[in-house]
Amino acid sequence: MRSNIHEVVVEFGHCDPAGIVFYPNYYRWFDAGTCHLFDVAGQSWKQLKARYGIIGVPLLEAHAKFLMSATFGETLQIESTIVEWGRKTFVVKHTVRRGASVLAEGSETRVFVATYPEDETRIKAVAVPEAVKAAFAG
Amino acid sequence: MRSNIHEVVVEFGHCDPAGIVFYPNYYRWFDAGTCHLFDVAGQSWKQLKARYGIIGVPLLEAHAKFLMSATFGETLQIESTIVEWGRKTFVVKHTVRRGASVLAEGSETRVFVATYPEDETRIKAVAVPEAVKAAFAG
Amino acid sequence: MRSNIHEVVVEFGHCDPAGIVFYPNYYRWFDAGTCHLFDVAGQSWKQLKARYGIIGVPLLEAHAKFLMSATFGETLQIESTIVEWGRKTFVVKHTVRRGASVLAEGSETRVFVATYPEDETRIKAVAVPEAVKAAFAG
Amino acid sequence: MRSNIHEVVVEFGHCDPAGIVFYPNYYRWFDAGTCHLFDVAGQSWKQLKARYGIIGVPLLEAHAKFLMSATFGETLQIESTIVEWGRKTFVVKHTVRRGASVLAEGSETRVFVATYPEDETRIKAVAVPEAVKAAFAG
Repeated sequence: MRSNIHEVVVEFGHCDPAGIVFYPNYYRWFDAGTCHLFDVAGQSWKQLKARYGIIGVPLLEAHAKFLMSATFGETLQIESTIVEWGRKTFVVKHTVRRGASVLAEGSETRVFVATYPEDETRIKAVAVPEAVKAAFAG
Repeated sequence: MRSNIHEVVVEFGHCDPAGIVFYPNYYRWFDAGTCHLFDVAGQSWKQLKARYGIIGVPLLEAHAKFLMSATFGETLQIESTIVEWGRKTFVVKHTVRRGASVLAEGSETRVFVATYPEDETRIKAVAVPEAVKAAFAG
Repeated sequence: MRSNIHEVVVEFGHCDPAGIVFYPNYYRWFDAGTCHLFDVAGQSWKQLKARYGIIGVPLLEAHAKFLMSATFGETLQIESTIVEWGRKTFVVKHTVRRGASVLAEGSETRVFVATYPEDETRIKAVAVPEAVKAAFAG
Repeated sequence: MRSNIHEVVVEFGHCDPAGIVFYPNYYRWFDAGTCHLFDVAGQSWKQLKARYGIIGVPLLEAHAKFLMSATFGETLQIESTIVEWGRKTFVVKHTVRRGASVLAEGSETRVFVATYPEDETRIKAVAVPEAVKAAFAG
């Protein structure tokens, strides 16, 4: 359950004047990949607050390599996998394929955050809830 | 063949601080709906130039009514239909549903354009190619 | 104080494979125009909840006409004006110019919404706060 | 001339349900930063083809660290600098600031590409034109 593949159709509006995917869109698909990964593990982002007091898993770092371009009308597969758990952080690896071809590889480092009980406007990093980690080990 | 439905998954990144779809995204989905409609009619936008000298079908006008909101994790169906042909223009109607609920209704008025033979930087409206119209009547 | 102009620079990433602004971006600029208009009237969207219990001013309807295209490297002026107040709604008119040329004209119809006191997950349309209306008349 | 700062206003539509900038937007601003850098060096992307046969400078790799979040209504400064020239590639460093605070740091590795003379649909990496490199050294 640590891995999930979702598909995206490259639309005309994802492409730039060179006719290929405008690269920030790959990060949109990485973000979606991480969100779907939490969904399939039964840890929907919508329920993190009620369950664990977690308000989100924002980015600390992101990286991508672009190997081949894509254009509209193509269907891509984004495979997302949690490859590392820190005490408060985790790393998700994303591989973008068009069939057998790898188009891009990326990673996101994210951190679990909560608000301070005494001040809802301030946030702090918190430990990964054990139940979340367990859900991904399933 | 004048109608097509494509699905979109509402992602976290489509939503705004109110937690609902940021409304310009509906127009992204309308544009994608029109593009897919041309695809299923065998009139891919990528081939319009080679076939007919048409460089695109840009917007003259767009309109939408928003009836219900949507949030991430939901799957929407966008039904797109050409409801009117002018001499150089056409109107596409789009209906966005989440299952049985209609979330939004919109329309796009578009025009067929080509470049001037004597000046590739200038464009002009041109008649809808008969073969295009015929393909949608199929 | 009912009108405001803000500028946007058209970036490469705003443009589509035809090399012109991908049309949903105009609605992004309309939304920004309305937001800035509230700011200059001293009615920041961020303070609507604390001040009036208003959680937002979502769209009921939007419309646009596209007269001329724009491409990256150009600076556009978006003029936004509230042209009509209903009991719970208002209409914002947007004019997009590149210097003396009008590129697009649009309108947004929006509604003031609040959550039910007894159920924070349900929303309802509410009357425009008098203080908001007064701020725009200033 | 190797460095340029451009400002962006964070809009409501740049922010996600957590109320902060949706992170792929930082890459949009990096891309815009690189484009503006070429502009101020007199090497507009629009002229690369006519001048050098270069059809673009697509991404090989991108990276970012996110240090602090931003929300709508804030103005950010993006400083973009070419920090390295390869034979066919270059690296642009981007620093995103809100006044004195550094919010994010990123880098893009890009490559100069041209089409094959005998086949306009295939691209290849080409040497950085000397005139381009000289313009940035100015």
